[in-house]
Amino acid sequence: MSSPIEQRKAEHLELCIQGEVDYREITAGFEKYRFRHCALPELDFAEIDLGVEFLGWRLAAPLLISSMTGGTPQAGEINRRLARVAQQKGIAMGVGSQRVLLEHPEVATTFAIRQEAPTIPLLANLGAVQLNYGCGVQDCQKIIDLLEANALILHLNPLQEAVQSGGDRNFKGLLTKIGVLCRALPVPVIVKEVGNGISADVARQLVDVGVAAIDVAGAGGTSWAKVEAARAQDTRQQYLGDAFAEWGIPTAQCLEQIHTALPNTPLIASGGLKNGIDVAKALALGASLAGLARPFLQAAHQSEETLAQRIDFILEELKTVLFCTGSATPQALYQRRYLERF
Amino acid sequence: MSSPIEQRKAEHLELCIQGEVDYREITAGFEKYRFRHCALPELDFAEIDLGVEFLGWRLAAPLLISSMTGGTPQAGEINRRLARVAQQKGIAMGVGSQRVLLEHPEVATTFAIRQEAPTIPLLANLGAVQLNYGCGVQDCQKIIDLLEANALILHLNPLQEAVQSGGDRNFKGLLTKIGVLCRALPVPVIVKEVGNGISADVARQLVDVGVAAIDVAGAGGTSWAKVEAARAQDTRQQYLGDAFAEWGIPTAQCLEQIHTALPNTPLIASGGLKNGIDVAKALALGASLAGLARPFLQAAHQSEETLAQRIDFILEELKTVLFCTGSATPQALYQRRYLERF
Amino acid sequence: MSSPIEQRKAEHLELCIQGEVDYREITAGFEKYRFRHCALPELDFAEIDLGVEFLGWRLAAPLLISSMTGGTPQAGEINRRLARVAQQKGIAMGVGSQRVLLEHPEVATTFAIRQEAPTIPLLANLGAVQLNYGCGVQDCQKIIDLLEANALILHLNPLQEAVQSGGDRNFKGLLTKIGVLCRALPVPVIVKEVGNGISADVARQLVDVGVAAIDVAGAGGTSWAKVEAARAQDTRQQYLGDAFAEWGIPTAQCLEQIHTALPNTPLIASGGLKNGIDVAKALALGASLAGLARPFLQAAHQSEETLAQRIDFILEELKTVLFCTGSATPQALYQRRYLERF
Amino acid sequence: MSSPIEQRKAEHLELCIQGEVDYREITAGFEKYRFRHCALPELDFAEIDLGVEFLGWRLAAPLLISSMTGGTPQAGEINRRLARVAQQKGIAMGVGSQRVLLEHPEVATTFAIRQEAPTIPLLANLGAVQLNYGCGVQDCQKIIDLLEANALILHLNPLQEAVQSGGDRNFKGLLTKIGVLCRALPVPVIVKEVGNGISADVARQLVDVGVAAIDVAGAGGTSWAKVEAARAQDTRQQYLGDAFAEWGIPTAQCLEQIHTALPNTPLIASGGLKNGIDVAKALALGASLAGLARPFLQAAHQSEETLAQRIDFILEELKTVLFCTGSATPQALYQRRYLERF
Ligand SMILES: Cc1cc2nc3c(=O)[nH]c(=O)nc-3n(C[C@H](O)[C@H](O)[C@H](O)COP(=O)(O)O)c2cc1C
Ligand SMILES: Cc1cc2nc3c(=O)[nH]c(=O)nc-3n(C[C@H](O)[C@H](O)[C@H](O)COP(=O)(O)O)c2cc1C
Ligand SMILES: Cc1cc2nc3c(=O)[nH]c(=O)nc-3n(C[C@H](O)[C@H](O)[C@H](O)COP(=O)(O)O)c2cc1C
Ligand SMILES: Cc1cc2nc3c(=O)[nH]c(=O)nc-3n(C[C@H](O)[C@H](O)[C@H](O)COP(=O)(O)O)c2cc1C
Repeated sequence: MSSPIEQRKAEHLELCIQGEVDYREITAGFEKYRFRHCALPELDFAEIDLGVEFLGWRLAAPLLISSMTGGTPQAGEINRRLARVAQQKGIAMGVGSQRVLLEHPEVATTFAIRQEAPTIPLLANLGAVQLNYGCGVQDCQKIIDLLEANALILHLNPLQEAVQSGGDRNFKGLLTKIGVLCRALPVPVIVKEVGNGISADVARQLVDVGVAAIDVAGAGGTSWAKVEAARAQDTRQQYLGDAFAEWGIPTAQCLEQIHTALPNTPLIASGGLKNGIDVAKALALGASLAGLARPFLQAAHQSEETLAQRIDFILEELKTVLFCTGSATPQALYQRRYLERF
Repeated sequence: MSSPIEQRKAEHLELCIQGEVDYREITAGFEKYRFRHCALPELDFAEIDLGVEFLGWRLAAPLLISSMTGGTPQAGEINRRLARVAQQKGIAMGVGSQRVLLEHPEVATTFAIRQEAPTIPLLANLGAVQLNYGCGVQDCQKIIDLLEANALILHLNPLQEAVQSGGDRNFKGLLTKIGVLCRALPVPVIVKEVGNGISADVARQLVDVGVAAIDVAGAGGTSWAKVEAARAQDTRQQYLGDAFAEWGIPTAQCLEQIHTALPNTPLIASGGLKNGIDVAKALALGASLAGLARPFLQAAHQSEETLAQRIDFILEELKTVLFCTGSATPQALYQRRYLERF
Repeated sequence: MSSPIEQRKAEHLELCIQGEVDYREITAGFEKYRFRHCALPELDFAEIDLGVEFLGWRLAAPLLISSMTGGTPQAGEINRRLARVAQQKGIAMGVGSQRVLLEHPEVATTFAIRQEAPTIPLLANLGAVQLNYGCGVQDCQKIIDLLEANALILHLNPLQEAVQSGGDRNFKGLLTKIGVLCRALPVPVIVKEVGNGISADVARQLVDVGVAAIDVAGAGGTSWAKVEAARAQDTRQQYLGDAFAEWGIPTAQCLEQIHTALPNTPLIASGGLKNGIDVAKALALGASLAGLARPFLQAAHQSEETLAQRIDFILEELKTVLFCTGSATPQALYQRRYLERF
Repeated sequence: MSSPIEQRKAEHLELCIQGEVDYREITAGFEKYRFRHCALPELDFAEIDLGVEFLGWRLAAPLLISSMTGGTPQAGEINRRLARVAQQKGIAMGVGSQRVLLEHPEVATTFAIRQEAPTIPLLANLGAVQLNYGCGVQDCQKIIDLLEANALILHLNPLQEAVQSGGDRNFKGLLTKIGVLCRALPVPVIVKEVGNGISADVARQLVDVGVAAIDVAGAGGTSWAKVEAARAQDTRQQYLGDAFAEWGIPTAQCLEQIHTALPNTPLIASGGLKNGIDVAKALALGASLAGLARPFLQAAHQSEETLAQRIDFILEELKTVLFCTGSATPQALYQRRYLERF
């Protein structure tokens, strides 16, 4: 009844909710940094404002629910919960790859979240490699329209495709096609990985062809090689997934290196962020937004209240970091340079 | 019967006596240093003298019983034991925050220790943030007088206040008010943290407005975020306390950085010191006095004899370090530069 | 019935198949390196070609089944399995020391693998120290002819000989004799260790007298001191083997140092390589071929299919590294310098 | 019946034979070094000669049985076993402190080992601090004569004396008195610690007044603070011994620093050496002799054969290091600079 692609989506959700699919040896790298405590902040905690601008949008806090799901009934329910809480908190939200929509327009409702989240930025999503497998500008426009999205995220996932038996592995000529999209589409194009990280070289190439922002989606959180190993049907995929379970550039390292190379490019930090202190460190390293995927999925799977509280705690932690470093705004975290590597 | 503030004090005592409230990941940092052994000290151990001067006072040894308690009957008994032993050993002693006195003058006897300790320096104590919540110069004068104190200690505790649900979190404009106090009071003003440490920047600001000495009260010993998490009544305080349990600047790092920036400022080392070797390392890093809180509380809770013996052992260890580094006086520990980082 | 040398060979096989004879403290060193992930490889995985040239031979992949065995019936069976799979995969293969042949020509069939592997490079093998114990150019020619070998590998094993009670320990004057061989023989001479590694100094001496390629055979995989300890008949050999169980230069360090000193010398990496990611790192560090011994022995002991699959997975891993670093060929791994030490 | 000093000696022996009295956190430091393996040593193992000269004496190997015992019947038996094996192996031997002899001449037989060891260097021993407690040149001459010693070792042990309740702690003016001894005595004077190490500063002072050689006796092996804690009769000694259990300069660090400062001073390495590889590393770091105490005591306590075998294995290990680094003599270990810090 369900198509292979829907089957895959369902397994991904299941494994990411229950499974042990995080990196074990590689960490996102935030534990190597420590904020210098400011004993005399000269601030009123009550006046601290987490509001930020990103790509022209106004957000109540520098937070993003990262691209995850869609395409199955369970995914639809998750998406609606995520959307309602994102709207309530005034933060941005992405959906999972919408490629399934192009083949199965009947699953459109599982992505139909604009009514739940009328005013926040919603981000469409597609695997960049699909540009080599029949997707064109009009397909992209279609998924943007369907979501009433404020931007399109293209994800790069060469390792995931290499591990998946039968994955789409022709990554030739993608850069040019991404450039074409950037010029043709009426919304900004953001490019992200899915957990193996983007290097400064790749970031520079992308920005040069017109990409508006980079989401590093680095190593240290969800390991997609592990997910694919866990759901493998053949020994090849299992063996290869395990072998590459710890492959990738740690999130903090991506941030440092891209921000040094491209100080003016808007950056999203994701991959292995766990709490508001990690969010604060990501901002201090040059990110403008911080995204979490699996932690929010697990909370939303419980209930909307669990998710709302999880976000509240993250924002309270972020505020506490601002207070205890004497930073009045998220931007000040970066400007004050109170983060020390040790 | 007991006010919220007395209730809080009682819980703090209980948790600090019994609980697991020390830092686990962050250490005070003294284990990174080792004294170079001197096999030929050319000293007579019997002639080594631990006596020091601090802010014009003469002490039998460079030791301080750090600010802890008052306000409840148990606190009163602890304070008297601490005072009697401090007097017997000729070392300095601080009391806990005296703010409670301003609202509940009836608890004054729990701080009344001058009769037990007629000749040693006694140090009054108040949270600096109270200067934003109604405390003025005259209140400070009142608590000094009540204790017949030789100095006033103001503590800075932004993290503790942020974690405590309902904490006092307006830290705006405190620096100016501290400056006013320094000029108005007849005794020196010392500023300390409560276990998250003071940075060189903050120390410099404080010294610039007239503060006489800095007690770094760094990370690595008692973690107040942990204490507040352990006694939390709501999930917010519990969650936040746990998240910030390992926040702060390690004690040894505070000493190094402040002493480098302000070589002439009298420094007190506290936060996670455990024995006389730690005391010796603190002195070698530029401190003039070394303070311990929780270890002395636990000993005093047992008995006066336990406390006296604990102090004796600390001083014997300190003397042994002096002997085995060829240092005739505490000052020589600093001058000989026999401490090596490794 | 079996000679001491055959007895020894049998014990070596047994211990290397079943025993715990790997280094424990020293690693081959590859875990200190990480490839920089390339999210946008601009390659078609399907077009990646692992083919390489080495000493004029064309191989389907930069892989070698390292010198191991011969001389007993079990060894003969292992050799034939290794040969058939090597032929099937188009990779190179070495045999174990052929010294036994010179004393016991009747075991020749255990080395007779050319019919199983008609077109791949086969490598003859002899302990270099035997040049001091009666072996001359003609003996070498004899073992080459018998194998129809494409090259002769001489192994250096001073530690193994020192540990073995009754080992051949006169290593004087070997360099000159190796030089004589290089000039006299019609095939290239390769020199390797057996798991303790070759230093840059020794490599340079060898290349200067005419050696065509160096196989570092470094520390981190099979520890021959451990093997000899495990099969010791006297306390001296047992004690000494254990004492030197962790002696040697880690494989990655050998590669770096020799490749820096002798950038044009063809290098084989062996000693402790476990999978295709290690193979890729070895190539990135300057090796032209990667050799594995014990892992292939254990697989071949199971069955030919197990061995074939093990090799398939290694090559698939290697291809995945090429893909995820944007490298179209094995050589590009080295040229792109995408390996980072951390 | 037995004097306090004899009682103490007996307890020391007992604890060092059975007890857990080694350093746990501090190591001698040799594990931070690794020899570069030489695959082509161009040596005949059979021709390697371990013979060395030290202070004009010819030894069969650069080994010393360090100063340990005397004064009780058990100690006498141990001393005779040590002496017979030292003679058999042609290495040097020290005895324990002979101070007891000055007060109890009747125990002289426990030190009377010259008949067991007619031709090797025997080293007399006295605590340097005794020069402040009544011992003069003539006493030193007496203990030298009694042993027919080839040199006098003075040991410096300020920590041990400080920990021992009732220890001799006046270390004033010792340097001058040591200088007087050096000029007055007909044999060379060697100075050593007892396991806390000698710094470069102290070594230089000693050499300047005429000391012939330094035995670093560094931290990492037997911890005398631990020994004294284990046999403590009062809480002070127990507490202090435990607090200083990990005090001292690691043996390898002493060697490096003294050898850099005083490249021409003959050095003995002791403190925590365990086997012939440690001995080799000590020689490579600039020592001329290597001493072991507790390991030899434990072997001798078993039997003379155990001790003889232990020494044989150490020498065989040392030879194997020489062989596998291409070093023909112990001196070459130092000259070839094949030791790498990592
Ligand atoms: C269940 C699940 C599904 C995901 N699906 C997508 C996807 O369709 N498109 C995408 O760009 N990233 C996808 N991701 C990757 C995330 O957006 C994110 O980059 C990655 O999980 C790292 O973040 P984390 O460590 O917080 O989980 C998915 C992640 C999860 C957990
Ligand atoms: C029970 C207890 C109560 C304390 N109360 C105060 C206080 O009222 N005022 C203050 O300045 N510090 C207070 N402190 C902090 C200590 O003075 C000290 O800075 C901190 O505990 C770190 O030292 P330690 O690691 O030796 O405990 C208190 C500490 C303890 C253990
Ligand atoms: C069973 C066995 C026998 C070996 N015999 C030889 C040999 O005869 N000649 C040789 O040059 N190396 C011999 N080696 C060493 C290997 O070629 C290789 O250098 C070493 O084992 C390190 O590789 P590994 O860690 O992949 O096992 C042997 C290895 C094994 C496991
Ligand atoms: C039982 C015992 C007794 C010792 N007695 C003496 C002594 O009398 N004089 C001395 O100079 N050193 C003495 N030492 C110290 C040793 O000579 C040596 O410096 C120290 O133990 C470190 O070496 P190790 O780690 O090999 O034991 C003694 C050591 C032991 C184990």
